[in-house]
Parts: sequence; structure tokens; C-alpha cells
Amino acid sequence: MGAGESVSAEVARCVEVIEASGLPFELHAMGTIVEGELDEVLGVMRRCIEKVAENHPRVTCAAKVDYRHGAAGRMRGKVESVERRLGRRADPQ
Amino acid sequence: MGAGESVSAEVARCVEVIEASGLPFELHAMGTIVEGELDEVLGVMRRCIEKVAENHPRVTCAAKVDYRHGAAGRMRGKVESVERRLGRRADPQ
Amino acid sequence: MGAGESVSAEVARCVEVIEASGLPFELHAMGTIVEGELDEVLGVMRRCIEKVAENHPRVTCAAKVDYRHGAAGRMRGKVESVERRLGRRADPQ
Amino acid sequence: MGAGESVSAEVARCVEVIEASGLPFELHAMGTIVEGELDEVLGVMRRCIEKVAENHPRVTCAAKVDYRHGAAGRMRGKVESVERRLGRRADPQ
Repeated sequence: MGAGESVSAEVARCVEVIEASGLPFELHAMGTIVEGELDEVLGVMRRCIEKVAENHPRVTCAAKVDYRHGAAGRMRGKVESVERRLGRRADPQ
Repeated sequence: MGAGESVSAEVARCVEVIEASGLPFELHAMGTIVEGELDEVLGVMRRCIEKVAENHPRVTCAAKVDYRHGAAGRMRGKVESVERRLGRRADPQ
Repeated sequence: MGAGESVSAEVARCVEVIEASGLPFELHAMGTIVEGELDEVLGVMRRCIEKVAENHPRVTCAAKVDYRHGAAGRMRGKVESVERRLGRRADPQ
Repeated sequence: MGAGESVSAEVARCVEVIEASGLPFELHAMGTIVEGELDEVLGVMRRCIEKVAENHPRVTCAAKVDYRHGAAGRMRGKVESVERRLGRRADPQ
């Protein structure tokens, strides 16, 4: 907060933190998906917040966790499950 | 809620609602991004919830809105802004 | 975004929009709960975003919807359900 | 997920986890606010997810973090800031 209208510099800093974790991730317009063990993913979240907080006194973060015992490869797998239901690719763009 | 462990059937139904709106969208593992005027996007959100509620008595939905006056093409533009900062593609997958 | 570190002025403006709707609501440290029909609640959300956007070119909003067919009085009812399970008030503060 | 329409039993279990942390918290209809150091709060979040996952193979969690350097007592302080702006209590209920 207080970073002005554009936050791409802050997001870029977070991407570097996420890349350093070695976990698979996807950057999207409304958020970044990181896949891994729960404590790994929460650790990345903590380091991203702390990194942004180096330059800003107040940082907000909205996160969604999808925890599934024994699951892996879900970042692509979940999209494929939906596309199987649809019988086609979901995204014409 | 109460739909069981997999919700891909419900997500597929939402994708059909979103496609019917004609708005550009992206389906991801943790959510679907829809771009448009605020009232259009909230209208799509309402129809998705009502569609899922046809088969389930209780429906939860977590949404993030990024409202920017006069902006368009931000679904790809925001990712590109971050990648310009990084000097590379952000996603090695 | 770009409003600086404090957003209490923007939240106060939203509270006035919510009050004008006549819907029951609760203001909390991390968000405001509004109870009503889905289209009423989404309408309030839209007017809050537009109100804040009068003074700021970019506005973000994170929302959670809990849609339940035929339910009312859930703002207090949900907390009471949890407290019945616990056999006590949940909040010692 | 798959817990059925009511999740009050799962929320009650989370409240017990949060109480065990000793951190100040508030239970609301749409979520529970926990105040503390970032690593403490994320640790509570992890233990809540793991507790619910003992009985359910898949658990989702939506969280918002408001990180502010050196701030404390914000759970009530933020609401009071808004009410000072309004010149009255924000909540007629």
C-alpha cells in the first residue's frame, strides 16, 4: 500500500523470491500460483510479504490455499479436469 | 459445498456461463480471470453462483476485483509489465 | 491503490454506501460483512468500488460470498453454530 | 470440501487451534481474524489447515494478510479509525 497505482515492481520482486524457492509456479494477471508442500508454500508467502515490506510500511496479501493430501501436478491437472468435462480447451485466447 | 472432493463439474458449468458472456477470460488452477466492465464482470459472477446453486444448497466464492479506470487488455498486459521488470518471461513451465 | 498507508477514509466512504443500502452489515478489521440477496450484495459491492474509484484511478477488492438458499440471519447464526460446537463463546476479548 | 453443507464443526476445531496459540483473535461469520507476528499467524493458518485435513482429504482456505511494521492492537484500532472518520459507531446491529 502506498506504492502508487502500479505494483509491477513489487510483483517482480515476489517472482524472484518464488523462483529462488525452486517450486513450480505460474504468474497470472490476478495472482501467482505456487505448488508445493504446505509449509514450503506458506514460507514463500512469508518471504514475499517480507520482501515487499522492505520498501513499504504496509503490505496486503490475499491468498487461497487448496490443500490435497498426496496430490502433485495439480496446477495443470486441475485445468485438464475441467477441460475433460467440457470436452474442449477452456480458453479460446 | 457438499459437492465432494472434486469440483471440476461445477467449474466446467461456470466456464460455460463465462463463455456465454462473450468476455475474455482465462481458466487457471486456482481461479478464473474475467475481464470487462465492472457490472458485466459482477453479472457473470452472479450467474456462476446461481448456476452452481441449482445443484447445491450452499455455494462459496472467493473473488478479487482489480478495477482500473479506462484500462483494457490488462489480463496479458499486467503479466507483461512484470516480465519487463524482470527482463525475462516469468514462467519457466 | 496509491491512497497511501491508511485507507480508513476509503473504508468510511464504503460504510456510508453500505448503510444507504439498508442491508444489515458488520464492520471488522479485515473486511465488512453484508447480508442480503445475492444481487443486492453484489450491487453494494459495485457501488463501493465505484465510490472509491471517484478519488483513485485503481481500486482492488477481495470478497468472499457465502450463498445459501433461503437462509437469513446468518451473520450471527454462523458464529452461534460454532459456539454451540465449542460449548462456549469463541471470543475471550 | 466434501464435509457437507455445514462446516461449523471444522470451524470449531480451527478455533481450538487458534486459542491454543494464545494470539488475540475474533470469530466472525465470514472468517476469523488472528493478530500477531507474521510467522506466528502463518503458523496458526498451517495448523488449522492440517487439523481440518485430518478428517477431510481436501481443504480450501482463503486468507487476507494485512502486514504493518511495528503495529499492534490493530484488530480494534482499524475499526476505530473508520468510526472516527464517520463520527459514529459503524454498526447499528
